[in-house]
Amino acid sequence: MRIKLTVAYDGTNYHGWQIQPNSLTIEECLNKAISELFNEDILIIGASRTDAGVHAHGNVAAFDVDTRMEPSRIAFAINDKLPKDIRVLDSMEVPDSFHPRFDAKDKEYKYNITNRRIYLPTERLYSYFYHRPLDINKMQRAANHLIGEHDFTSFASIHSQTNTFVRTLYECNVDSGDNGKLIISVRGNGFLYNMVRIIAGTLIKVGADAISCDEIPDILNAKNRSLAGPTAPAHGLILHNISYTIG
Amino acid sequence: MRIKLTVAYDGTNYHGWQIQPNSLTIEECLNKAISELFNEDILIIGASRTDAGVHAHGNVAAFDVDTRMEPSRIAFAINDKLPKDIRVLDSMEVPDSFHPRFDAKDKEYKYNITNRRIYLPTERLYSYFYHRPLDINKMQRAANHLIGEHDFTSFASIHSQTNTFVRTLYECNVDSGDNGKLIISVRGNGFLYNMVRIIAGTLIKVGADAISCDEIPDILNAKNRSLAGPTAPAHGLILHNISYTIG
Repeated sequence: MRIKLTVAYDGTNYHGWQIQPNSLTIEECLNKAISELFNEDILIIGASRTDAGVHAHGNVAAFDVDTRMEPSRIAFAINDKLPKDIRVLDSMEVPDSFHPRFDAKDKEYKYNITNRRIYLPTERLYSYFYHRPLDINKMQRAANHLIGEHDFTSFASIHSQTNTFVRTLYECNVDSGDNGKLIISVRGNGFLYNMVRIIAGTLIKVGADAISCDEIPDILNAKNRSLAGPTAPAHGLILHNISYTIG
Repeated sequence: MRIKLTVAYDGTNYHGWQIQPNSLTIEECLNKAISELFNEDILIIGASRTDAGVHAHGNVAAFDVDTRMEPSRIAFAINDKLPKDIRVLDSMEVPDSFHPRFDAKDKEYKYNITNRRIYLPTERLYSYFYHRPLDINKMQRAANHLIGEHDFTSFASIHSQTNTFVRTLYECNVDSGDNGKLIISVRGNGFLYNMVRIIAGTLIKVGADAISCDEIPDILNAKNRSLAGPTAPAHGLILHNISYTIG
């Protein structure tokens, strides 16, 4: 049967999701734990290949296995074999046709910023510290221009490999929390390479008055990466959720 | 002149505040950074000797120095010499009579609990994971019994060294946050050794139906540590703030 996993991790000590030689990755740890549990070589398929240092509350993976174990118990059994900074939050049986990447309906990311004079040490691993004042209203006005279907070439790494740069953002919100926290939440039908971090870097430039909110449509239309803001650091980013029609 | 510092730290990698042989402590790091900055041996006086693993957003320390440096800039200069998991958030000149411990008017702590089936790795260092369901309403009813002036012998470590076990709690709130987070906030005129962690451990027992909220007055009256709940783990505790009339 095919098993779908919801996976959370603290990306601080990993070189991202995807297996690579001589570096510890999330995918490698999961393959090892699952293969050990079922006593056979199992390779998972992941939904999102998050970059080095990026965190997740809800990445998704799938694998096939013959077992009598209750599907919902598999999460706990895998967790017994994983390091503490990776947890399987949920496991369930899905149809054999289920594919974590191709069947994803929408994805939600959060980008955390700590905007204060001096950062709090307890926030430093999961939030990008930015000490100059940020105008959250301007950031939200800029974010509103990104909602909808657009060609996001200006907001994609030049290393993106894709047939089309057109994506649809359903939501792009900037909210404030305790202790100077700002949270950028984006939900869309798909994201280009580095797209959320470039959106975050651009909204920070807007909040700091280095880019005007009204320039966003021009930046989109120009289809030129150099006009958007910098790629914000990986450790502020959390893959929050991936939705499917199945499961 | 006497300088008051507001200090935040991630306690994960420290054996608490107070200097001790063969273990890294917050006090030691601060003494070293400040002595290096002013090129003389300086010893700080701390307000609260937090235990190993406990975090802070607002511990307070003071020291004397002869310097022409603007008092408010001292925080930044010390931070340049501190490890990343300790930050001085604020520095100011105070009267020579100021004492961080004796002049404290009230202290506020927060105890973070992650109450869900499986924990989120990004919360694991700053929140105590408790997987059985907790009834927050019962916890708040129990907390209400603790507010006011009481003899807190039942809620103090048997290793407490003090003349009186009478303390006054001004606030004791249980709030819920995202992702199964519960936050116990306590504010009082002073706290006995392990008092906040024993309050947290007791409220968790109440939330899990192992102690009834109505037993709290009896537990207080008995002045017997063994009747309260266990001492909740250090890593869920944050010293949030210390208030003074001066500064």
